[in-house]
Amino acid sequence: MKVLEDRIRKDGIVREGNVLKVDSFINHQMDTDLFEEMALEWKRLFAGKPINKILTIEASGIGIAAVVAREFGVPVVFAKKAKSINLDDNNFTTQIQSFTHNRVYDVIVSKKFLTPADHVLIIDDFLANGCALMGLLELVEEAGATVEGIGIAIEKGFQQGGALIRQRGIQLESLAIIDAMSEDGQITFRHQD
Amino acid sequence: MKVLEDRIRKDGIVREGNVLKVDSFINHQMDTDLFEEMALEWKRLFAGKPINKILTIEASGIGIAAVVAREFGVPVVFAKKAKSINLDDNNFTTQIQSFTHNRVYDVIVSKKFLTPADHVLIIDDFLANGCALMGLLELVEEAGATVEGIGIAIEKGFQQGGALIRQRGIQLESLAIIDAMSEDGQITFRHQD
Repeated sequence: MKVLEDRIRKDGIVREGNVLKVDSFINHQMDTDLFEEMALEWKRLFAGKPINKILTIEASGIGIAAVVAREFGVPVVFAKKAKSINLDDNNFTTQIQSFTHNRVYDVIVSKKFLTPADHVLIIDDFLANGCALMGLLELVEEAGATVEGIGIAIEKGFQQGGALIRQRGIQLESLAIIDAMSEDGQITFRHQD
Repeated sequence: MKVLEDRIRKDGIVREGNVLKVDSFINHQMDTDLFEEMALEWKRLFAGKPINKILTIEASGIGIAAVVAREFGVPVVFAKKAKSINLDDNNFTTQIQSFTHNRVYDVIVSKKFLTPADHVLIIDDFLANGCALMGLLELVEEAGATVEGIGIAIEKGFQQGGALIRQRGIQLESLAIIDAMSEDGQITFRHQD
């Protein structure tokens, strides 16, 4: 999606270790006009699918997912990183490894809000190794719900997550896929039709 | 705001210890059509104020704040509950006591995204004892920014937070103020014009 790629080139900051900072418009300060354009693009890409719920994970996915949910006219549920105090039989639970924070989170969704009747579009800001997405897919599976697709803002195409998801036959729409980046600010995007 | 009060009566669940669960439409599953109506009401209530930024705190404030930001046409910044790994000179920092989780959080906002040029509308889902809001006000003050007002979805009027904020002369607009609630589901809302 050209408008997102242009914005990443303009305002994204490449740091050592293949870190891309987009905190001025995606995941600390958020540009909701951009989110709206992204939502409209996902609406086009997932047209015809019987999506009745958006699923994301706290915290940085929530802003994008809320704007997407408004555009699709469906509720959004965010999976919570749980303190053990909240764990009980009323929740679907999984564990997600965070490399950014070097720890494992328990992640939960209430059984009330994810059921076999749900046709889910998963939304998140980043896809790299795929750990967060695999966790969300597990929660959807536990619930007996159906994944209709996954919408990602920025995929690091040089990490394994995207390939793992696509191998499973899930429609994955990443609006910008980065194939390479270097600390002098050069970013190579994968060509997408 | 009648539509929110009606929804709380219909879908809110009162638990012992003055706990009100609104996780089916506010802070786990989120009804973004309702958020849009709330955003329009805040737009009316804060009309004429030179608001150029929305500020909230992760996680449950983000969804509402994103919809509000779209309506106001300004960016939204969410304060992050920090792992110590992120603490550095680039952030404004404060501490917030969470009674729900019985712990103290370090909360940060990047100095890049809160400056003396900012006229801030703070948005959050709940106001009870006011600890989270006091922390956000401290961050705004550290930054030399101006608080134009505070918009809260649900205020527990029988706790001290609202009174403390109003004493400071800040325009606080809570769309539903609960003066009393009981476990048989009775909820008394404060009359507001």
